[in-house]
Amino acid sequence: MEIRKIFAQNLKRERLARGLSQEELAHLADIDRTYVSSLERSVYNPTIDVVDRLAKVLGMTAAQLLSPTNAQR
Amino acid sequence: MEIRKIFAQNLKRERLARGLSQEELAHLADIDRTYVSSLERSVYNPTIDVVDRLAKVLGMTAAQLLSPTNAQR
Repeated sequence: MEIRKIFAQNLKRERLARGLSQEELAHLADIDRTYVSSLERSVYNPTIDVVDRLAKVLGMTAAQLLSPTNAQR
Repeated sequence: MEIRKIFAQNLKRERLARGLSQEELAHLADIDRTYVSSLERSVYNPTIDVVDRLAKVLGMTAAQLLSPTNAQR
């Protein structure tokens, strides 16, 4: 699976698992809400700093957010 | 450890483990050699597409190249 799709699926699943809205996640990670929405639709190609910031808010590592095994769960 | 440092350490170690020069890795990943050198010095903030391309050349996943546990080995 393409890396942006893996990231998109993991991000959405982990956000919902923590009961966070896109707006709340965006606010906590200091990122624009529309950007979070685009990332969850694999529209953009984020940098590792952005992935790391989102991962930290979710209590994970960037590696976990990019892990294909997590995406297929 | 900061995500760029984790990536820089993993990239350099995995490249050397496969006996590849920066030039060879850059050529195989269709990336500029000076960019590979900068990434190994954690100067730039790469996108996940770039990390994924480099990982594929090294026979790894992007997640593995960003994994903190790999960085501390």
